[in-house]
Amino acid sequence: MNEIAITAGGTSEAIDGVRKITNLSTGSLAQHCLDAVFEHFKRSGSGDFIVHYIHSENAMLRALNDEEKVHVNYIPVTDAASVYKAVDQLTRERKIDYFIHSMAISDFTFSYAADIYRLARELTGFSTLDGADEIKVIEALRNPASQLQKGEKIPSDEDIVIGLKRTQKVIPLIKQNNPATFLVGFKLLNKVGEAELLEAARYLSEQNGCDLVLANEASAIGESNHRGLLVREGEIILRVTGKQEIAQAIINEMFK
Amino acid sequence: MNEIAITAGGTSEAIDGVRKITNLSTGSLAQHCLDAVFEHFKRSGSGDFIVHYIHSENAMLRALNDEEKVHVNYIPVTDAASVYKAVDQLTRERKIDYFIHSMAISDFTFSYAADIYRLARELTGFSTLDGADEIKVIEALRNPASQLQKGEKIPSDEDIVIGLKRTQKVIPLIKQNNPATFLVGFKLLNKVGEAELLEAARYLSEQNGCDLVLANEASAIGESNHRGLLVREGEIILRVTGKQEIAQAIINEMFK
Repeated sequence: MNEIAITAGGTSEAIDGVRKITNLSTGSLAQHCLDAVFEHFKRSGSGDFIVHYIHSENAMLRALNDEEKVHVNYIPVTDAASVYKAVDQLTRERKIDYFIHSMAISDFTFSYAADIYRLARELTGFSTLDGADEIKVIEALRNPASQLQKGEKIPSDEDIVIGLKRTQKVIPLIKQNNPATFLVGFKLLNKVGEAELLEAARYLSEQNGCDLVLANEASAIGESNHRGLLVREGEIILRVTGKQEIAQAIINEMFK
Repeated sequence: MNEIAITAGGTSEAIDGVRKITNLSTGSLAQHCLDAVFEHFKRSGSGDFIVHYIHSENAMLRALNDEEKVHVNYIPVTDAASVYKAVDQLTRERKIDYFIHSMAISDFTFSYAADIYRLARELTGFSTLDGADEIKVIEALRNPASQLQKGEKIPSDEDIVIGLKRTQKVIPLIKQNNPATFLVGFKLLNKVGEAELLEAARYLSEQNGCDLVLANEASAIGESNHRGLLVREGEIILRVTGKQEIAQAIINEMFK
């Protein structure tokens, strides 16, 4: 049995009960990848596959027909921590042959909110005759005593600062748990040229053992004009335009 | 002609090209209000009305039939500033008779992102022999010199802080531009009892001239179990459960 995993959409990190930080991603490319997987197995005449589809709440999900449904195991997630847990569990429990990791996972999660007046008062308290204690200021910016209580709705009458802390990276888990997985990674950058995109794709491959990387630039993303570079073993093997074409190229390369 | 305005959904404030802060709101209650408006005019046998429907991109929008479509003027918005502009323009250009302001508008918008090490270095620079200069620390927390460049993708290798500044309140505009409008306001609080909800509803009415306020508590929100208080002239006139019932009660009271 072919075991395939796809991650889709963008994560959301809760700030309080009414606000969250979301990563922009429609999940459309992942849906096209799922469609291309269906197409591949239909063409090859095999029904011996399952797709574990890890998706955020805002990821678009096409309604599947009954024949397709039996091949998909939907796994809903919300924030970066929930994706980490889901991917870790899946890659420990199942021998995933192909992993298409296209989800936009937040690098940061909410740590605290603080009123700037109270925070300024706290920070100036670290002054000594020798000047301010920089280490204490750093510690306070990471986790101030004057922060608002967790779960409290943030008052709206003063400017505030929000502290964000890094989340645990998900992609290294995949090959750590399953070195034999064929891993497809995605790299999105803003306002860079092809040389920088290629460099970033190579770095992602080296760090996390990606077998294939789709590198793209934020301004070149749209349903029909989405342009990407397909990078394998550090070299550009294809320049592709359009989400459907990108998905097709990934699946072709994956099953080659 | 009856001119009605409804605001629906939650705003999104861009942080950078790939992240945003969103306010949770499905727009479902506003959609139920629109449906109740259709129902009201159908019952009264009048087709002499238009609904200006100001909605965020994530607000749910039911597909309308051809008969309904002619009565709705959709006005799409994104962030708090765009809602302010749209409401200001609409209430200056048209004599709005009824305004149902149910959108969750962000109290804050993105101001800056800063690496905590560089920010700490900047803040400790304001130390003097007399101690730190608190005014300069406040100013720097509001707009630090060490902030990341606007539009730049935020690097993911260090903890950061994000500065948020207050947005301009939209609700006061409505009666300022059109004192004769019947204004329905909404108040959402977290973890409070009925007395506090009522107090907040009274305050909202007094500050902005709301004729009717729907006050509710975040934990009591769901499609069928959404509970709210309908407050008019400082008194609870109805306790309602369920979004559809809440919408019906608002429309009944509005056209009474």
